[in-house]
Amino acid sequence: MRQVSIALMGFGNVGQAFASLLLKKQETLKKEFELEFIVTGIFTKNHGAAINSGGVNLARALEFIAQGTPLSNLSEDNRVFSPESFIHGSSAEIFVECTPVNPYDGEPALSYNKIALNRGKHVVTANKGPVVYGHTELAKLALDRRKGFYFESAVMDGAPIFSLFRETLPLIELKGFSGILNSCTNYLLDLMTAGATFEEAVAQAQNIGITETDPSADIDGWDAAIKVAALVSVLMGISITPHQVDRTGIREVTPEKIKIAQENGEKWKLVCTAKRHGNRLIEASVQPQTVKADSLLYLVNGTSSFVQFETDVLPGLGILEKDPGPLTTAYGMLADIMSILKKYYVYR
Amino acid sequence: MRQVSIALMGFGNVGQAFASLLLKKQETLKKEFELEFIVTGIFTKNHGAAINSGGVNLARALEFIAQGTPLSNLSEDNRVFSPESFIHGSSAEIFVECTPVNPYDGEPALSYNKIALNRGKHVVTANKGPVVYGHTELAKLALDRRKGFYFESAVMDGAPIFSLFRETLPLIELKGFSGILNSCTNYLLDLMTAGATFEEAVAQAQNIGITETDPSADIDGWDAAIKVAALVSVLMGISITPHQVDRTGIREVTPEKIKIAQENGEKWKLVCTAKRHGNRLIEASVQPQTVKADSLLYLVNGTSSFVQFETDVLPGLGILEKDPGPLTTAYGMLADIMSILKKYYVYR
Repeated sequence: MRQVSIALMGFGNVGQAFASLLLKKQETLKKEFELEFIVTGIFTKNHGAAINSGGVNLARALEFIAQGTPLSNLSEDNRVFSPESFIHGSSAEIFVECTPVNPYDGEPALSYNKIALNRGKHVVTANKGPVVYGHTELAKLALDRRKGFYFESAVMDGAPIFSLFRETLPLIELKGFSGILNSCTNYLLDLMTAGATFEEAVAQAQNIGITETDPSADIDGWDAAIKVAALVSVLMGISITPHQVDRTGIREVTPEKIKIAQENGEKWKLVCTAKRHGNRLIEASVQPQTVKADSLLYLVNGTSSFVQFETDVLPGLGILEKDPGPLTTAYGMLADIMSILKKYYVYR
Repeated sequence: MRQVSIALMGFGNVGQAFASLLLKKQETLKKEFELEFIVTGIFTKNHGAAINSGGVNLARALEFIAQGTPLSNLSEDNRVFSPESFIHGSSAEIFVECTPVNPYDGEPALSYNKIALNRGKHVVTANKGPVVYGHTELAKLALDRRKGFYFESAVMDGAPIFSLFRETLPLIELKGFSGILNSCTNYLLDLMTAGATFEEAVAQAQNIGITETDPSADIDGWDAAIKVAALVSVLMGISITPHQVDRTGIREVTPEKIKIAQENGEKWKLVCTAKRHGNRLIEASVQPQTVKADSLLYLVNGTSSFVQFETDVLPGLGILEKDPGPLTTAYGMLADIMSILKKYYVYR
């Protein structure tokens, strides 16, 4: 049995789902892979931090959060941690980060990932920010230190996108892609198509927790632009930031426009597109578009997402993710950990 | 630079596309992977065989086939090869097989793969037959000999399905799937929806080379049943043969039924489904079904295919392959070779 130690930074919906998933999969990990995962530290924004080199009790940590009890009660000592001292203090081999996204410069998560890699830890993040503002630097840092830097959950939750290209599509040339990558705006457009005003739709999305308190990063297309930038940077090897994506949000999609589209048998969707010619990027955009009923995008509704890749050898390869939730994102992080173990330790 | 030697059995559309793909990717293989692929033998059904331990000239082999010249003219000696003596005689590390499918018992390809593994070669096949009638035995043989036995192109051409689960979805539990996996019947149903009779549709499919001279394996659902059996056996770990799949072909889908469906805004599709509960398979079927316009299957037309997987952590993960051709299938075989090199030789 090999022990794998993990430090978890961020314990919101995704972090908690990750803890639950580890509990759920612990038997399989032991039986099939002879692996035992222990979480040697959890850092939360509002409920303190716990460090325990023998492993924080995950079931109790989940209970504590549900009750609003600080996690420091589960810590092996009484230190109060800053993010930095937490990263240095947790003895984990693998640093797993799922703090909130900063769509404008990726901080402070970008720095956290950098500190962890410099400290000699493998890094797994569900956070688009560090990927899109620091991918080149972080990937180089990881390579130099022979550590993994993986981020499957940064785009389309746990659906395999980065690992798809990395592990299953060798020698392929990605020419372009097109799809629906922001579930919040997709959901808002659904509600407006069903008759809601923009304000009513936003209120309902906030109610069920699909969007942040400030939904402008979604509505103005920033979240989608980050995902386009991440896919272009990583899969095409052409580094761009979200600021370089030609971006229009959905504020201009009025109920009148939606009505006209419906009359024509069409729907408005916030469509992400990128195209390249050789090493030159000729398009990277986020734009509301009308799509016809014979387009697959027409059927991508609610919080589902879809992307279709055009490559030199597979004319059209589409990946659909239906009805994702925090568990889906948590699974992407677990899959990244398994990739690290496979690559760096050869687990079987 | 590392040389990788390949023996190629079967040189029809797919085998020729594979040779073209190797030529197209040889520079990238050298530059990015320091690999040089040489094909030390090609066996054809009707144009003889060539063996050359220094590498058969692929460009000339393609020319010879186009001209109808026997490949034996490219051989380093004058031997006439049986399939068995070819496998034994070719000095390749990797045996790549793309002979025609036998949907009823998988032979003789099953035996060829077995001989090659016993001979200590890695095996890559694009052929569903050996997978579905010999997967357990061949996988065990490969494991015992520490060789690879990969077959990405057996289902959905080169779209990653088996490698998707093997490489990117660790610890996942596949609960079921549903999709369109036979492009011939999908194309026939399209033509009939456009007004063709069954006979006219079959004639047109034969004309453009989508179906075999005897199209009954497609029309009676055998090809789809093999794919269901392959997915169930490999991805669910429950070994079944196509004979155990509840199978109905498209002969019962009359123009009248198609017309009624159209009037209801529906289409007939040959739908593949499997479901399991724990380790018990509760459904494995190929059945013509009507699908509504709000189903993704409604939009999977022509030779495209689609499958949606239901798992314990990703509620719905769909893979779409649009407009595949022989190059797509050839790419799946090349991807398999790269997986073998990664796993057994660690190429970078």
